[in-house]
Amino acid sequence: MLEEVFHELDCCITAPQGFTAGTAACGIKADHIQDLAILASDVPCVAAGTFTTSNARAAPVLLCQERLQSGKAQALIVNSGNANCATGQQGMQNAYRMTELVATHLGLDNTLILCSSTGIIGYQLPMEKLEVGVKQITLSKEGGKDFSEAIMTTDTYPKRLGLEFELDGRTIRLGGVAKGSRMIYPNMATMLSYLTTDAALECNWLQSELRAAVADSFNMISVDGDMSTNDTCILFANGLAGNVPLNASHPEVGRFQTALRYITKFLAYELARDGEDATKLMTVHIHSAYNKDDAVKAARAVTHSSTWNHALADDDPNWGRVVAALGASGCTFQQDQFDIFFGEVQVVKQGIAAPYDQQEAQAAIAGHEVIITIDLHLGHSQATAYGSVLKAGCQ
Amino acid sequence: MLEEVFHELDCCITAPQGFTAGTAACGIKADHIQDLAILASDVPCVAAGTFTTSNARAAPVLLCQERLQSGKAQALIVNSGNANCATGQQGMQNAYRMTELVATHLGLDNTLILCSSTGIIGYQLPMEKLEVGVKQITLSKEGGKDFSEAIMTTDTYPKRLGLEFELDGRTIRLGGVAKGSRMIYPNMATMLSYLTTDAALECNWLQSELRAAVADSFNMISVDGDMSTNDTCILFANGLAGNVPLNASHPEVGRFQTALRYITKFLAYELARDGEDATKLMTVHIHSAYNKDDAVKAARAVTHSSTWNHALADDDPNWGRVVAALGASGCTFQQDQFDIFFGEVQVVKQGIAAPYDQQEAQAAIAGHEVIITIDLHLGHSQATAYGSVLKAGCQ
Repeated sequence: MLEEVFHELDCCITAPQGFTAGTAACGIKADHIQDLAILASDVPCVAAGTFTTSNARAAPVLLCQERLQSGKAQALIVNSGNANCATGQQGMQNAYRMTELVATHLGLDNTLILCSSTGIIGYQLPMEKLEVGVKQITLSKEGGKDFSEAIMTTDTYPKRLGLEFELDGRTIRLGGVAKGSRMIYPNMATMLSYLTTDAALECNWLQSELRAAVADSFNMISVDGDMSTNDTCILFANGLAGNVPLNASHPEVGRFQTALRYITKFLAYELARDGEDATKLMTVHIHSAYNKDDAVKAARAVTHSSTWNHALADDDPNWGRVVAALGASGCTFQQDQFDIFFGEVQVVKQGIAAPYDQQEAQAAIAGHEVIITIDLHLGHSQATAYGSVLKAGCQ
Repeated sequence: MLEEVFHELDCCITAPQGFTAGTAACGIKADHIQDLAILASDVPCVAAGTFTTSNARAAPVLLCQERLQSGKAQALIVNSGNANCATGQQGMQNAYRMTELVATHLGLDNTLILCSSTGIIGYQLPMEKLEVGVKQITLSKEGGKDFSEAIMTTDTYPKRLGLEFELDGRTIRLGGVAKGSRMIYPNMATMLSYLTTDAALECNWLQSELRAAVADSFNMISVDGDMSTNDTCILFANGLAGNVPLNASHPEVGRFQTALRYITKFLAYELARDGEDATKLMTVHIHSAYNKDDAVKAARAVTHSSTWNHALADDDPNWGRVVAALGASGCTFQQDQFDIFFGEVQVVKQGIAAPYDQQEAQAAIAGHEVIITIDLHLGHSQATAYGSVLKAGCQ
């Protein structure tokens, strides 16, 4: 999938020069589970973030949005087990206090510290535990793996990746981690992802690039249809690789874009794959939509459709439910023009049943990874969405 | 709930003067199950309908929308087992042919005949079976019950109601039937409802009244979150009661409005209640929303939230998930102003946890009928939504 100029690294957010991480078990979760983590750069970073569009944003999200207006950050503290959401003014004070603890512990400027929380909504953070926990954290180059595990809530495995590539005659590293939730009982449905790079970047360019990458990756996965109060994706770029800062007119910017798109899609795909009772992963490609907005609506409507999910779980190639989902999506749609393929099998041609073989259609959706391609024959836009399919009888 | 001036009737769409119905087992479904039904009035009716907003509307929906532009209709034919959707030009021809069969059989003007289909998408109707089936149908005043059963697909029981009341010195009857789908495997997710009355009505007034009644009833239930290609609600008014035709300025119009609202809400509630593996019915009241659109969005977001449904199924009063659903709904929302009640127990006050007793909160949501009240403290609009909660472990 990736050209050979990109090399995969063992791990991840501490692979780029100048980044370290560490964790602690501070007691928010029981049984000495790691529930507190810090990521830091040796030098201040250019930074950008994308966040939940919920109107009930958690305190740490509000803090990050405020501080990232400067386009700079140097460190991040994350706790799992408590979302610090619906916690009022006390919650906001606690979010600020979390960053102060890191500033004191690491000797950094408090305004350059960000924080995230993930877990149950409606409870105040146990600040006395955090006060002790932060002091126990030692940062190291090996800390990225521990970090990726400490942010998990109901994930069954950590999601992480690092890439190394040449750009501008320099060696650049880009790493990322993410946590999602299991599908059936997403006690804490929050999606968190953090990305680090030693590339030098221009801040405004980074913000738009990150937004575009998240739109095509994390925003295209369907877990349970619910949006969290805490969803967060932040990228830190400390510039230690020494390249000419990247922006849209940099001649080699495409290579960084490719790496960023690859990592965010990889992490998003892994989030969709890690579902309790998820037996299939559905990938829905929309081609030739009237515009990009329509393509996204259509792709997401198919992954979201509960009736189509039920059919897929039963290996039932009942494409009528795909049609119903497309029709309900609100995308521009011509009833006598669209085609649908299950894998290589065309089941709909110009809006009505194609002359397909039922057994072949069934075989095309019976595997663990189902690919559905829909050509709307209306324009030039496309989109891809990913969805988990839960096992039959448990939807 | 209803004043004593309204009397419930045994049944339903054939209770008003001049309406008859009948059914047949024409073989679309197996085992001689009734799968074809006709409803007719002795005289032409003022008629109005509301339909799915899907962009993939089925052929019978397109036919009804076209013919109801006249504001008149006299009869209706419905088949179950096949949705006549994604069937192209042939499907459209078949829908017209269905109405011709009725016109010939009953000696009526073909342009006054409507049709509906519900069932699987993507297959042509077996017209030879319909040709034979229509001729077997005998209409009678007792046919309303059979009609309500013949339109069922995955429903476990028929939904029907009739009311009688005085208005304008005349006895008026209003009846209704509806079919929905079971929750877990809604093979045919279509919602159909037909209403009849012998009241005289003005056509334009009826259209707006029906739209408003459907907005507050059928459009506020959450079954599986999927919109069908065939959803239909039609009201026939034949005027045989002899009252001065109803419109917005009729002095007693409120009584008819009350009856119409009551029947549509009753039928909608019954659709939500009839869920396979549905263990609870959740009613969500939104008070003091900024505007009506916000109230509807908020109420439906809570009934739709899969994470909150999971909590309810487990009798877990995890109100944070209600907050997450409200935040994600897009409704105008102040994080430090809203209150949430489970039954009589206030669990959130001004956006943070109220000092409630956990056992009392749990008891408030442990029953079969759960009432959630949310006060947004922003304006004067309200809405109520109904949702099925599936049993734990099967979501």
